[in-house]
Amino acid sequence: MVLRLALLGMGAVGRGIIQAALEKDLGLIITAVADSRSGCIDPNGLNLPELLDRKDKTGMCGDTGISAETIVKTAPYDILVEMTPTDARSGEPATSYIRDALQRGSHVVTSNKGPVALHYHELASLAKKNHLQFRFEATVAGAIPILQTLIHNLGGNEILSLYGVLNGTCNYILTRMAEEGLTYKQALDEARTLGYAEADPTYDVKGIDAAIKLVILANTVWKKNICLDDVDVTGIDLLTEEALRLAEQQDATIRLIGEIIPGDNIYRLCPRIIPKDHPLVVQGSLNAIIVRTDLAGDLLFVGKGAGSRETASAVIGDILSIRDIHAGGN
Amino acid sequence: MVLRLALLGMGAVGRGIIQAALEKDLGLIITAVADSRSGCIDPNGLNLPELLDRKDKTGMCGDTGISAETIVKTAPYDILVEMTPTDARSGEPATSYIRDALQRGSHVVTSNKGPVALHYHELASLAKKNHLQFRFEATVAGAIPILQTLIHNLGGNEILSLYGVLNGTCNYILTRMAEEGLTYKQALDEARTLGYAEADPTYDVKGIDAAIKLVILANTVWKKNICLDDVDVTGIDLLTEEALRLAEQQDATIRLIGEIIPGDNIYRLCPRIIPKDHPLVVQGSLNAIIVRTDLAGDLLFVGKGAGSRETASAVIGDILSIRDIHAGGN
Repeated sequence: MVLRLALLGMGAVGRGIIQAALEKDLGLIITAVADSRSGCIDPNGLNLPELLDRKDKTGMCGDTGISAETIVKTAPYDILVEMTPTDARSGEPATSYIRDALQRGSHVVTSNKGPVALHYHELASLAKKNHLQFRFEATVAGAIPILQTLIHNLGGNEILSLYGVLNGTCNYILTRMAEEGLTYKQALDEARTLGYAEADPTYDVKGIDAAIKLVILANTVWKKNICLDDVDVTGIDLLTEEALRLAEQQDATIRLIGEIIPGDNIYRLCPRIIPKDHPLVVQGSLNAIIVRTDLAGDLLFVGKGAGSRETASAVIGDILSIRDIHAGGN
Repeated sequence: MVLRLALLGMGAVGRGIIQAALEKDLGLIITAVADSRSGCIDPNGLNLPELLDRKDKTGMCGDTGISAETIVKTAPYDILVEMTPTDARSGEPATSYIRDALQRGSHVVTSNKGPVALHYHELASLAKKNHLQFRFEATVAGAIPILQTLIHNLGGNEILSLYGVLNGTCNYILTRMAEEGLTYKQALDEARTLGYAEADPTYDVKGIDAAIKLVILANTVWKKNICLDDVDVTGIDLLTEEALRLAEQQDATIRLIGEIIPGDNIYRLCPRIIPKDHPLVVQGSLNAIIVRTDLAGDLLFVGKGAGSRETASAVIGDILSIRDIHAGGN
């Protein structure tokens, strides 16, 4: 059985999915794609080389008369792959797209933190009621399949706590401040030049991005019901190079660490002084997560925290999980 | 829907499964259990506290008239959980049990390296033909869910190479030789005293155990068809404390590293000198694995390599994956 995908978003991640569908034998066809200005639908599967070529030449994937909303509500597909930009305040329009797709009887995979952080319980209930999958591996820790691991692979374990470096931009800035003695501003400028930080880096450096990931972890792994205000957040924007120098003198360094201790309802993100040989002292834009469990003991996961290929990897992993469940796991 | 388990083996891992079924709400009942001398069957679910008590008092779980073979062939169950001791040469009797269960239409979870290293392709084909699951997470890397991660979560990635510390006993010995300047023999004796090494440690220290794990990885993740003889194996039993001292002088140490480069058909296990700050330099009985992928980049996994709770964690993870596939993923 060939599964039909509808993609919302044709940036680097969307292109990565299309490339993978072209190059790898995944048992999938893409029946609809929307970008911010246009859309295209073919119930028999779009011609993907033509699609990529059209997008390159015109900046649009299809006709301006076909919107994301049209695709969600009318195109034929088994899985909606929702990759529109995150709006962390409203979760829209992504949440409406996801809700509509689930109500139509389609599975949903998203890379969008907004809907998961704000509306997980509603969307997961709707999925469950309709016997559908709702997956969002790409929203936390980039290439590390941490949600599948905690929710599925370690099922049966009680996850007692989680500590982690969850924002690659902050980790890059802290690494460069410590390595090269750069000031916060110099390191931030370098991160911007290299494309690791946005023009407006507030979302990363104030810790909002990492805190949203803690909300997603808390609500999905532990079925809590918290929001961003429930996380105790300190970013790295007020950190001085003196603080880092002092840490270095003790063979330590500073990392922005997120922490969840579900039994005590602790959800915290703050810069911490940690010994240089600690496993969470990863370099550059890496992410690292330690989980403590009742049966499996302590586990460490390290991998790239962001990037379009890494996000595509997470999205494809979710799509293939759904394909495998459809096929009875074979 | 409540899934019915038949357990073969009631050592520490089997007890761990029974304890988990008692303490956690896993949606499972246990309808049959065999140990090496006896067995018991109850189609409505065994009384687990009574079962544990009987085993403690008599050393047997049930009646001597009920064998593992009887259970495999006649008891009512949805999943056979095969945890008998590994025979790495013949794979028996475990392979016959697994074959019979798959032919009867039951899923199989095993912690036994023999059948997977020797007969993976036959057993996986049989499972696929009968639309059944055949899972064996516990056979590699203890508590780290590396097989689920590579085969399922990172599905869609090409896994380009794998490097890892796959035997906790050897890693413990190497750690103690480096830390305390112990001789190989002293460190081995200590590992024996602490229960990390068997009375006959040949299987671990000559690298056979880790090499079998490489065979399992090669055949299941990359669908190769190799056997133990195809792995280039050097153990740690001839390693001198001088070699370790020389490594230490260069701020390095020695670890027993398994390596798979599938594109070049390289399957190798040997002691290697690596810098002390390398992520594979883990301490004590830990395992560590680095995989290189085309989309997700490099990923590192670290966790306990052995132990009955850790093995139980892996077995339960497999059981719950099957339960979730049965339930359509919800």
